Amino acid sequence: MWWAQTHNKRQRDGRSAMARLIQKFGGTSLADIARIKTVAERVRREVEHGHQVAVVVSAMAGTTDRLVAWTRETSRLHDAREYDVVVSSGEQVTAGVLALALQDLGVDARSWLGWQIPISTDRVHGKARIEAIEVAELDRRLERGQVAVVAGFQGLGPDGRITTLGRGGSDTSAVALAAALKADRCDIFTDVDGVYTADPRIVTRARKLDKITYEEMLEMASQGAKVLQTRSVEMAMNHRVRVQVLSSFIDVPGTLVADEDEIVEQQIVSGIAYSRDEAKITVQKVPDRPGVAAAIFGPLAEHAINVDMIVQNVSEDGRADLTFTVARADLERAVSVLEAKREALGFSALKPDSNVVKISVIGVGMRSHAGVAQKMFQTLFEKGINIQVISTSEIKVSVLIAAEYTELALRALHTAYGLDAQE
Amino acid sequence: MWWAQTHNKRQRDGRSAMARLIQKFGGTSLADIARIKTVAERVRREVEHGHQVAVVVSAMAGTTDRLVAWTRETSRLHDAREYDVVVSSGEQVTAGVLALALQDLGVDARSWLGWQIPISTDRVHGKARIEAIEVAELDRRLERGQVAVVAGFQGLGPDGRITTLGRGGSDTSAVALAAALKADRCDIFTDVDGVYTADPRIVTRARKLDKITYEEMLEMASQGAKVLQTRSVEMAMNHRVRVQVLSSFIDVPGTLVADEDEIVEQQIVSGIAYSRDEAKITVQKVPDRPGVAAAIFGPLAEHAINVDMIVQNVSEDGRADLTFTVARADLERAVSVLEAKREALGFSALKPDSNVVKISVIGVGMRSHAGVAQKMFQTLFEKGINIQVISTSEIKVSVLIAAEYTELALRALHTAYGLDAQE
Repeated sequence: MWWAQTHNKRQRDGRSAMARLIQKFGGTSLADIARIKTVAERVRREVEHGHQVAVVVSAMAGTTDRLVAWTRETSRLHDAREYDVVVSSGEQVTAGVLALALQDLGVDARSWLGWQIPISTDRVHGKARIEAIEVAELDRRLERGQVAVVAGFQGLGPDGRITTLGRGGSDTSAVALAAALKADRCDIFTDVDGVYTADPRIVTRARKLDKITYEEMLEMASQGAKVLQTRSVEMAMNHRVRVQVLSSFIDVPGTLVADEDEIVEQQIVSGIAYSRDEAKITVQKVPDRPGVAAAIFGPLAEHAINVDMIVQNVSEDGRADLTFTVARADLERAVSVLEAKREALGFSALKPDSNVVKISVIGVGMRSHAGVAQKMFQTLFEKGINIQVISTSEIKVSVLIAAEYTELALRALHTAYGLDAQE
Repeated sequence: MWWAQTHNKRQRDGRSAMARLIQKFGGTSLADIARIKTVAERVRREVEHGHQVAVVVSAMAGTTDRLVAWTRETSRLHDAREYDVVVSSGEQVTAGVLALALQDLGVDARSWLGWQIPISTDRVHGKARIEAIEVAELDRRLERGQVAVVAGFQGLGPDGRITTLGRGGSDTSAVALAAALKADRCDIFTDVDGVYTADPRIVTRARKLDKITYEEMLEMASQGAKVLQTRSVEMAMNHRVRVQVLSSFIDVPGTLVADEDEIVEQQIVSGIAYSRDEAKITVQKVPDRPGVAAAIFGPLAEHAINVDMIVQNVSEDGRADLTFTVARADLERAVSVLEAKREALGFSALKPDSNVVKISVIGVGMRSHAGVAQKMFQTLFEKGINIQVISTSEIKVSVLIAAEYTELALRALHTAYGLDAQE
């Protein structure tokens, strides 16, 4: 991604008197005209503090779902270019209405659609990637004090047609715009007030994190925490955009996603995520010879089925059991792909199981501290929880366990890693 | 209005085997996905006949009203540029969905938004006028057999922002596109099946007209018949676009609006229109001296209040009563504008009356036939209906009468001019 830009290099920090901010509001914050007016008040406050503000908006809650349903009801062929024409209209409405609401408060504001800026994307309609943002005009107007209200989720393809960025794409719009406009911070307003050490609906002693590194946030997002879209975190990390996740309903500081060196007191473990979107398949008694893994995973890849965790048990009589996980939505398809190859693969049985959960312990501190994985295994063992599959990365340990132990495991691990809030 | 065009001159007539058609569908024809699919079937039929088709769509019924209400609820300041961003989204949705519905039937189709063609307008947001349409690419694709689904009601202003053409503007989009693309005919699909000699809900013996001249249609539209927008008829007349008004629900020929020389058997009177949107103001005992009319109508014009019919009675003692009509929606404003000038104008009283109706007898045959007006006055006299104000044009006689006589007058005139359908 590159930015066409003509303005002077900006060197600001978030604490300076005057800052450039991107504020992104999601659909629940814009669900009706009353809430849009509340958002306008929130934006005005920053303008009154002397800040330059660009706002990125989602569609009103429910709108995108309805538009998507219409396209599905109309045609199973699903021309993604027409899909984009239809679903992008939701953000067009909120951009115009919010600009009106700001003007009504006496704030100079105008709406911007993806094609007007333009936010140029690749040609992959329905899940396009942003390639460039022409910011010269936006930059001039922000300097002049005008608020830019940008329709999120949409761009302009090389074919001159509207593209959309995929579900949750407005987060990506906001981070990309923050990078292009060299914003001091990108505030993502949502219905939670920040990133927690664990899901507070399950772990009552979960704590809101003041700060979290990009790497950790990326793992949290891809391991099931639904606060930010994975792609927007990747983009923030690549362009060093300081992102704050905060509530659009209550006025308290949120969680800052930033560089490791901005975070002074680093915990070894920052958070514990879980994902119920996993399913497990065990291929029993598959011949234990070179090339068998390729023979199994090749057909799945051909059908665009991603495999996540993999484990193979010890061979007996030249045969072994192979266990792996796929997205729960892909389970049925994965089974039928493999059943079709049963003879060629030579396995005895397929055992699908969607009654599993993936629990992940995440923290950049793991890089320099041993024993994190060991503490996880020990804690689960003490609670009598059997670990089915394990996978690790530099800053993460994930285990697959039976779904019924989800809450027990989350609470036990949260305590074991010293994350519990003080009473 | 001019057209940027590169294609060869087209010389076709509507009866030739292959024609180029514009089809415009209104909001009730596109009210839900099921109806949009029905519209797609209707379009496919023309494609299968070998015709080239461009479709112009309105928003789903109710959508524009809802979007307009949101802008009003948000801001009384009402920046027309943001209004246009919001309300133009309705046609964007139907354009995309209809393109999908056509593709689902195996018809090659793509949607076009105003800014994509572009349909260039002036800068008057909220009620812009079309200035140019770039048709080269559309023309190429029509020749290739692709159906163009064009979002009606919208264009691109010189400021690079979306404009809208005012309520009912999709009719104008369709006629402008027909002119630019040199279409053989512009079919306006609506919830009535054509233009009638009178409102068939009142005059049960009203007949559907096979053909009507532009001039008559223009008078019918501006005298209260709500079938076509006045502006779209003007444009059709100026560019000699053959327009057919027909039903989107029942499959029968509609009414062709065309040149006088296309209409062989011309009636003296083609139709009788009425308008309840009028209100009458009588300014009593105003000094009868030069300049008094200017003194009354000047302030009204300054407040953008249009005056339609005017009559002044015979002066008595140097004072006369002046009666005129304004749009009913302007009545209160007109009264307060004049009351504010009571002293300067020197009248004795203002008598507003919104309990009136304007009845118009319309026909190009009047040009060559005397006695049309006389027959109208005689007929109304015989029914005991008092005429309050009269105005005439070359092809129209209008009278203002008490609203309670509307139905009686319409039926009596319909019979008197020999318009009644045979039993």
